[in-house]
Amino acid sequence: MTYRQIKLIARPEKEITADIFEITTQEIPTPSEGEFVVKLSHLSLDPAMRGWMSPDTESYIPPVELGHVMRASGIGEVVESKNESFPVGSRVMGLMGMTEYALTDGKGINLIPKELPAEAILSVIALPGITSYHGLFEVLKPEAGQTIAITAAAGSVGSLVGQMAKNLGLTVVGVAGSEEKCQWLKDELGFDHALNYKDADFAEQLTQATPKGIDLYFENTGGAAQTPIFERMNAHGRIAVCGLIAEYQKEVPDLGPSWLNIIKKRLTIQGFTMPDHFHRIPEYGQVLGGMLMKGELKYRAHVIKGLESAPSGLNLLFDGKNTGKLIVEL
Amino acid sequence: MTYRQIKLIARPEKEITADIFEITTQEIPTPSEGEFVVKLSHLSLDPAMRGWMSPDTESYIPPVELGHVMRASGIGEVVESKNESFPVGSRVMGLMGMTEYALTDGKGINLIPKELPAEAILSVIALPGITSYHGLFEVLKPEAGQTIAITAAAGSVGSLVGQMAKNLGLTVVGVAGSEEKCQWLKDELGFDHALNYKDADFAEQLTQATPKGIDLYFENTGGAAQTPIFERMNAHGRIAVCGLIAEYQKEVPDLGPSWLNIIKKRLTIQGFTMPDHFHRIPEYGQVLGGMLMKGELKYRAHVIKGLESAPSGLNLLFDGKNTGKLIVEL
Repeated sequence: MTYRQIKLIARPEKEITADIFEITTQEIPTPSEGEFVVKLSHLSLDPAMRGWMSPDTESYIPPVELGHVMRASGIGEVVESKNESFPVGSRVMGLMGMTEYALTDGKGINLIPKELPAEAILSVIALPGITSYHGLFEVLKPEAGQTIAITAAAGSVGSLVGQMAKNLGLTVVGVAGSEEKCQWLKDELGFDHALNYKDADFAEQLTQATPKGIDLYFENTGGAAQTPIFERMNAHGRIAVCGLIAEYQKEVPDLGPSWLNIIKKRLTIQGFTMPDHFHRIPEYGQVLGGMLMKGELKYRAHVIKGLESAPSGLNLLFDGKNTGKLIVEL
Repeated sequence: MTYRQIKLIARPEKEITADIFEITTQEIPTPSEGEFVVKLSHLSLDPAMRGWMSPDTESYIPPVELGHVMRASGIGEVVESKNESFPVGSRVMGLMGMTEYALTDGKGINLIPKELPAEAILSVIALPGITSYHGLFEVLKPEAGQTIAITAAAGSVGSLVGQMAKNLGLTVVGVAGSEEKCQWLKDELGFDHALNYKDADFAEQLTQATPKGIDLYFENTGGAAQTPIFERMNAHGRIAVCGLIAEYQKEVPDLGPSWLNIIKKRLTIQGFTMPDHFHRIPEYGQVLGGMLMKGELKYRAHVIKGLESAPSGLNLLFDGKNTGKLIVEL
């Protein structure tokens, strides 16, 4: 019995191209004492993966070594086990890599309930959910009545941030890159405003949508939306910098806005990445699971099929062409 | 009996010029019930005054209205009083304006001890001291063993921040704009390193002076030093944005660095201004007075003479030509 893996064999220059990956086929391993084998059913494709491919040693998590399986989180079922905590038939989630089967000792692997669809888990409870929850509650510390602006608002993280903020009683302004995404934010998710940053009069639209200014800013993109939002910040505003997807592939990233407003308005800008807070996953997972069960969080998944679709699928994220959480069904 | 005041009669374009002020002469007023008259002995000239002159309504404190006495803090003696809390002979400090005499009801005016020299009070306990103390302890939250970089390190705020950080066991790297200032920081104040940002190899010098990177950054200037320091920040670094004196008079202020490092290094950048924290002045004043008495804080004052020298004196701050806390002796 054999299975396939995708290995990273070169660093991306700017865009992610097929030739930096290699698909290999090998025998399914047998677990030693304490180990078990997972058959993956779904992989998650996330913007953070671009950072994991690059040799930048300052990043928050070491890059994938060349010749190793590309890092990715996924869901699967235990099919052979010599580990009592993960018996055959268990459903598990974790950073098992771009692979059809994984051998693991259970470190960093979590058991997950069988009743939820894989799309719901990867879209709400996995990385997007814990990132949204942490960024909103621990970094931005929202209060009812405030106005929040969210970039990549139709993305897996932004759409959850906006829904949680709306449920708390904030005025929610989403920024996205297409009319279709904006419609979805307003019609399906109940955002107060959804603006297309590609519109020539985006800054004007933003001013009209935020008559009382912006108190909180959840930043996922950088690029064209950043300065207009920054200019609308109110005194004592808070900014969570979660992602800058428009900047990762630029040869020279855009400069940020002048720091003058940071003083004038006594702003706080805070960057965060989830590996610093992975110890809180069980706690966050429980709260998010509850919200999901109560129907408080809608999501949409963009599912592509087959392990071989994963590398090119990643580019959908950087082009903004995905509509919903990007998932590979194996 | 008459006295002189300086009124703001026009907004500055870029530089502060003499023709935006007017010196007027009037009768010394008589206090009504609850009021008292102060004869000013010293005025403080501070970078914040540039902001008070500009019509920018977003600032943290409203601009001075045209035709009104220019706002300034000062020290003086009560010479006539119908207020029991401030008897004749008391020494007081507060925002009494660019004036030789002031009539006040005591709001925002604090009694100060008579035994300390006016230079010590204005240099250490007044705005520079409370700003340094708040920025270092409340915003940067220093820990022994960390490395701190400070811009305008020879200025009234920066020099106190560096001394307090040194006393706490931090490695202190000061950045200033002349060799003389750098010598003073090293020889007199005991900074570990003092670098001149005008040196062509400043970034290289900074790298060599900070082999373990920079954990805390107390920003007073903006300009050329900002990006090299920002690039040296360590993971979880904290930045207090207190002033941007190199930017205030630029037609188009410099952009800030790309936000990519804010994520990669999970930085926190926080702007602050003291009017938000004026309720803590008594507490901070006591601690700073204690440090001063114990000889833990050195200062140098740059004293100019006569009310009429105040407007042109302000430009010394923006040219970086003052050596020490700028004070007008009346």
